[in-house]
Amino acid sequence: MANPSILILAGDGIGPEVMAEVKKIIGWFDAKRGITFDVSEDLVGGCAYDAHGTPLTDATMAKAQEVDAVLLGAVGGPKYDVLDFSVKPERGLLRLRKEMDLFSNLRPAQCFDALADFSSLKKDVVAGLDIVIVRELTSGVYFGEPRGIFTEGNERVGINTQRYTESEIARVARSAFELARRRGNKVCSMEKANVMESGILWREVVQEIHDKEYPDVQLSHMYADAGAMQLCRWPKQFDVILTDNLFGDLLSDMAAMLTGSLGMLPSASLGAPMANGRPKALYEPVHGSAPDIAGQGKANPIACILSFAMALRYSFDLGDEATRVEKAVEKVLADGVRTADLMGPEGGTPVSTSAMGDAVIAAL
Amino acid sequence: MANPSILILAGDGIGPEVMAEVKKIIGWFDAKRGITFDVSEDLVGGCAYDAHGTPLTDATMAKAQEVDAVLLGAVGGPKYDVLDFSVKPERGLLRLRKEMDLFSNLRPAQCFDALADFSSLKKDVVAGLDIVIVRELTSGVYFGEPRGIFTEGNERVGINTQRYTESEIARVARSAFELARRRGNKVCSMEKANVMESGILWREVVQEIHDKEYPDVQLSHMYADAGAMQLCRWPKQFDVILTDNLFGDLLSDMAAMLTGSLGMLPSASLGAPMANGRPKALYEPVHGSAPDIAGQGKANPIACILSFAMALRYSFDLGDEATRVEKAVEKVLADGVRTADLMGPEGGTPVSTSAMGDAVIAAL
Ligand SMILES: CC(C)[C@H](C(=O)O)[C@@H](O)C(=O)O
Ligand SMILES: CC(C)[C@H](C(=O)O)[C@@H](O)C(=O)O
Repeated sequence: MANPSILILAGDGIGPEVMAEVKKIIGWFDAKRGITFDVSEDLVGGCAYDAHGTPLTDATMAKAQEVDAVLLGAVGGPKYDVLDFSVKPERGLLRLRKEMDLFSNLRPAQCFDALADFSSLKKDVVAGLDIVIVRELTSGVYFGEPRGIFTEGNERVGINTQRYTESEIARVARSAFELARRRGNKVCSMEKANVMESGILWREVVQEIHDKEYPDVQLSHMYADAGAMQLCRWPKQFDVILTDNLFGDLLSDMAAMLTGSLGMLPSASLGAPMANGRPKALYEPVHGSAPDIAGQGKANPIACILSFAMALRYSFDLGDEATRVEKAVEKVLADGVRTADLMGPEGGTPVSTSAMGDAVIAAL
Repeated sequence: MANPSILILAGDGIGPEVMAEVKKIIGWFDAKRGITFDVSEDLVGGCAYDAHGTPLTDATMAKAQEVDAVLLGAVGGPKYDVLDFSVKPERGLLRLRKEMDLFSNLRPAQCFDALADFSSLKKDVVAGLDIVIVRELTSGVYFGEPRGIFTEGNERVGINTQRYTESEIARVARSAFELARRRGNKVCSMEKANVMESGILWREVVQEIHDKEYPDVQLSHMYADAGAMQLCRWPKQFDVILTDNLFGDLLSDMAAMLTGSLGMLPSASLGAPMANGRPKALYEPVHGSAPDIAGQGKANPIACILSFAMALRYSFDLGDEATRVEKAVEKVLADGVRTADLMGPEGGTPVSTSAMGDAVIAAL
């Protein structure tokens, strides 16, 4: 049987730096554990635009469709702000999500013990926090038509369409319920059913799927504004939060920030199973391309490393190896090894991106 | 000249209780300061549905259009969850906002010194916080057409439309810039211009209005997800935040929760000037109808009282009287007078809704 395949799209800004550390870890698995991946690399985002005039070529798109998992670094940077909407770095990422049909975006917001002091929230509010936001990723206002800037009378009007079909809601709801069963068995679904009809349909379909297929899971519904409040007030009340593309964008960023561990948080974007039984999958850190610190060896590679751990778990059925990586990261943190973003008043050993990667490997 | 007129719509849940305290204060202004308002009262929300089968009658709507200011308590409750979307309590509030054309919703998020410990955020992150969110309130996905639940093939699809015209963006931007000039002179505008064309137009128009009419105000732009993060991380970086209806809904609730003072925060919704020069205006607390504690004398009337103070300032040009009310509230808090929601570990004197109103009057 062929080795499992990975396409690395390191992207822009700190993307290549943090991805370099993941490549070391992939090398370690090959050398020390006899687990070998066929790794190829390509461009996405601003660097793809620089090379090809598009943030994602058709050839790269085709490769992404064929591999077992895509690992993405980050896209974007101020250099590309002037570009037309249609070729902005983000469009490359959005095309991957849409064409690979990665409808279920898992975003864990986890507070690492060694970093609980980093949060702007009180320690008791976030210590031990471990929730996952399941964000719908291929529909909603991100992709709905009609969209654009039009002229009406003598002025411009900007239009986007929030649009969800029953089946789009049902499939992401199932993935949230499945995940909840492997965790705390609780799902809270968030929308604005008091204001938006798409939210009413969302609530109804989630409830139906629950009642028919997952009656054992505890389900609640919350308006997204109240959800944002409750995430600030007492995030530990949640286990799995299920929400749409746009609310998920805001709520997951917020939840990530709560933990104080932004440079630490991975994500998985999963689609339907392929012929080989593996889901279509893309893994990427929650943080962005951080152009202000790019190229300085300051970036924290842990979010990207933990994204690779998610790949081991969700794409390659190597849950134990994923845990091995996660435990190594915990050990390194407990030992006080710190990239610049993790240096707090209590000190620690300041290290570069690359030294952090080496420390994780040493701990493996 | 006739006395200035106020229409009180106390609404559901704790609405009538907190509004009762405002009525006392209106009485105090009449008796002690010779400032007399013509006050009328009517129904909105669930109670209007119970009485008339609609959350807002045409007669009440007409009255709201005629008065100088509307004071609203809160709408909604579990009892009305079963109602059809078109007659839910919220529709009454949304109709008021839309037909009065209250496009500029000012939501201060202020952390009261006496309550800084109440926040789930660290004290140094929120102490002294004083920002205002200016939320567009009459357009966007709340009102855009087409909307509804339709059948396509053999499944349902939920649709809402995000829609902003240039002039809608321009007028709310102006109100944010005007406000900033009277405060810290800084506006941060939030949208998702990286994903939504309506966000691109929003950003362009805000920038144009700034460059042409308010070049002295410091303007920045932020994606709304990054904005949610930054509000959690270091909210004091902001002065005035300008955003659309839906983002404003989430971000303002979140900002309110950050302060730990949810039961304390007022809001003003302002429209265009009427013939008498006063803006169309509706004032309401940020908190909801809190059905769980309604009728028990537990509710905190301060948000509603401070909403009346905003009315004094924005509708009646009585800025000094508004400050008088605000100072009275601060004194009461400093004295340790506390409704149940404000009772923390450090103690204080527990009081009922009505005793809190009396304490504010005593301090006036
Ligand atoms: C980069 C951007 C298009 C993207 C999004 O809005 O989805 C990002 O914010 C995210 O959350 O992954
Ligand atoms: C009650 C509801 C319709 C309303 C809104 O979504 O605008 C509320 O959440 C608010 O923020 O005033």
